[in-house]
Amino acid sequence: MTDLVRSWIETANDPESPFPLNNLPFGVFSAGDAPRCATAIGDKVLDLAALQKAGLLPDHGFDEPALNTFMGEGKQAWNEVREKLTDLLRDGAETDAVRDALHDMGNVTLHLPFTVIEYTDFYAGRQHAFNVGSLFRDPANALPPNWLHIPIGYNGRASTVVVSGTEFHRPMGQLKGPQDDQPRFGPSQRLDIELEMGAVVGMPTEMGQRISVDQADDMIFGYVLLNDWSARDIQAWEYQPLGPFQAKAFATTISPWVVTKAALEPFRCDTPPREKELLPHIKDTGPMLYDIDLSVTMTAPGAEPTEICRTNYNALYYSAAQQLAHHASSGCAMRTGDLLGSGTISGPEKGTFGSLLEMTWGGKNPITLEGGATRTFIEDGDTLALHGHAQGDGYRVGFGPCVGTVLPERADRS
Amino acid sequence: MTDLVRSWIETANDPESPFPLNNLPFGVFSAGDAPRCATAIGDKVLDLAALQKAGLLPDHGFDEPALNTFMGEGKQAWNEVREKLTDLLRDGAETDAVRDALHDMGNVTLHLPFTVIEYTDFYAGRQHAFNVGSLFRDPANALPPNWLHIPIGYNGRASTVVVSGTEFHRPMGQLKGPQDDQPRFGPSQRLDIELEMGAVVGMPTEMGQRISVDQADDMIFGYVLLNDWSARDIQAWEYQPLGPFQAKAFATTISPWVVTKAALEPFRCDTPPREKELLPHIKDTGPMLYDIDLSVTMTAPGAEPTEICRTNYNALYYSAAQQLAHHASSGCAMRTGDLLGSGTISGPEKGTFGSLLEMTWGGKNPITLEGGATRTFIEDGDTLALHGHAQGDGYRVGFGPCVGTVLPERADRS
Repeated sequence: MTDLVRSWIETANDPESPFPLNNLPFGVFSAGDAPRCATAIGDKVLDLAALQKAGLLPDHGFDEPALNTFMGEGKQAWNEVREKLTDLLRDGAETDAVRDALHDMGNVTLHLPFTVIEYTDFYAGRQHAFNVGSLFRDPANALPPNWLHIPIGYNGRASTVVVSGTEFHRPMGQLKGPQDDQPRFGPSQRLDIELEMGAVVGMPTEMGQRISVDQADDMIFGYVLLNDWSARDIQAWEYQPLGPFQAKAFATTISPWVVTKAALEPFRCDTPPREKELLPHIKDTGPMLYDIDLSVTMTAPGAEPTEICRTNYNALYYSAAQQLAHHASSGCAMRTGDLLGSGTISGPEKGTFGSLLEMTWGGKNPITLEGGATRTFIEDGDTLALHGHAQGDGYRVGFGPCVGTVLPERADRS
Repeated sequence: MTDLVRSWIETANDPESPFPLNNLPFGVFSAGDAPRCATAIGDKVLDLAALQKAGLLPDHGFDEPALNTFMGEGKQAWNEVREKLTDLLRDGAETDAVRDALHDMGNVTLHLPFTVIEYTDFYAGRQHAFNVGSLFRDPANALPPNWLHIPIGYNGRASTVVVSGTEFHRPMGQLKGPQDDQPRFGPSQRLDIELEMGAVVGMPTEMGQRISVDQADDMIFGYVLLNDWSARDIQAWEYQPLGPFQAKAFATTISPWVVTKAALEPFRCDTPPREKELLPHIKDTGPMLYDIDLSVTMTAPGAEPTEICRTNYNALYYSAAQQLAHHASSGCAMRTGDLLGSGTISGPEKGTFGSLLEMTWGGKNPITLEGGATRTFIEDGDTLALHGHAQGDGYRVGFGPCVGTVLPERADRS
């Protein structure tokens, strides 16, 4: 495990900063002006468009309001930019040009870091799949028969992937519980979170082109935290046989900083032992998961945050590389800016479940929050936050916030 | 029903031309040069970029290689351009400027007419849903309990929506039949078509914004033919519980000309009687389906085409407007260039089924093609073509081709 790389920006050397020089994630910011690409260092945002304009970085579209052009330039460009930024920010390398391109993190607006071209959600949490199967169908047949063979997934909705901090309204939908004669249309009463990681596809494939797990891993630009907000009652009524649709389509929140594969390299780890042998095209070829500590806090209006979940990305059964190899396996073309949700990350014990559905076992066992409020599902005004970092030796690689507050349903139609 | 509107371009006045002046669909073409927007008239393609440059049309991005800018301009722009083109092409209105912008249809390349932002596939064919439910699950519970209440759908894959004429390879995938101990990875042996119509979303909505059926109908720019190619064996193993994914992701073919709502106005008709009352937000508000004759031909290599299906768009249970209203109902933002597949259109009788799965009843009853070949599912080198037109009084409104030929699976991985 590598040590902290010291920066001339002091706050980056704090062992609890999410943004040491070892990290160098990519995002998009504005400071009362046009959005453009940035990196984060300590408590600062570094304007990459300014560095590009000053000739300190090659032209990779850093003046654009999204990372897609840069990502599409490929691995060599990603590595060169990382090296160059490391050189510019290393302890002792302070220059006016770089200092002039810094902004205090608290003074900027962070935007969706890339244009999400398409969004696919996977289902790689074994415990989550087991728990949901028990609750939605039948404990005796909880894990679907294909689960241990295929990293199954479904296409999600890209148009409502939003950056941390974006508020949204409680979704309306068709609801029909087991006791109801007729369905009705109304606000979801079982609004939930899903703690996930998002893998960002940097390099595309052509239609008809299949890829190995190694090629898939190479294509990934980096990772974000991802909350796949879910309306469990809308989901229960709509999902057979075509899968989840409106239940997921109202909002998905991601963190604003895409943490690169390079920054996560020291934290690679293996997937768990295979319960059944995988087919060759998705077999594990090396450590493709990451040791990333994850947690979720829930905050009732006016109260302090309560930690409701603590787990790790390495609790998953399948890696993003396996999911991506599967995604292209029929010849499905992948594109720069595609986003892949890992699936809800739940560990095996209480306290490690990545959704309220599991934590409260379908609403049967309410949880108690700081300030005394109890919850089964999300109530109006609640704030849910995902937190994550990879713990190094004297430093950590963080992702930034992944926060959302739920507003009441909209009364009007438009 | 209106009569033929006569054009100074004679071939447009032929009662069997798909492109009379009553139609004026929109597409994208090139003639050895850069792709740009066009309309079709008789056996000609009319270059709209040239007309825009000559000041005969307002600047609506017709010089771009996609219709998205024009569609995003809104209904008033769509209507004004239709009126202007009608005036320019009306019998007696011949000018050099317009004549100079014409190309023979046979001399041009037609491209994907718009950038498909996201693609959603619905399931509004009652007979199809019943047939598939019987084959995939259980005849006693063939129609899912939610089917008569919700115009259910699932997100599809936009990256592999291609224009008519695009060849593609037989998809590979994980396969596990009822008799197999273990799954295997190999070429699909049950490759199929799905006869559908595609509705093209012209006007967007915001996240959180719900829409009425009337507002949804207003948002639709026009319609295309759509073949939702499907790998039934990949589908059977992967689809529970998250829905179809790789089974559909390898290719979807659409016709090159988007036929506008205005051209289809004389052909509006009602949905069938409701078996169960619909909730208010998706209730029928008027005639939102269209009377469009549809057929499918299948051509074995070296043989003549065989018609294998003949039906009508009005066999569907739900309209595109209802599907779109449902799609936005949770607050899901819709965007210009979103594509909505209707779902497979199957009538109640033999000869009207829109998929080989149904025509051959899961492969049990082979069909015989011209030249003597028999088929259960698609074989390498087969060509499948969807055909459609709305029949007026002495004219028809056509869609152009929707054709695909299946190549053998790719042996190499990349």
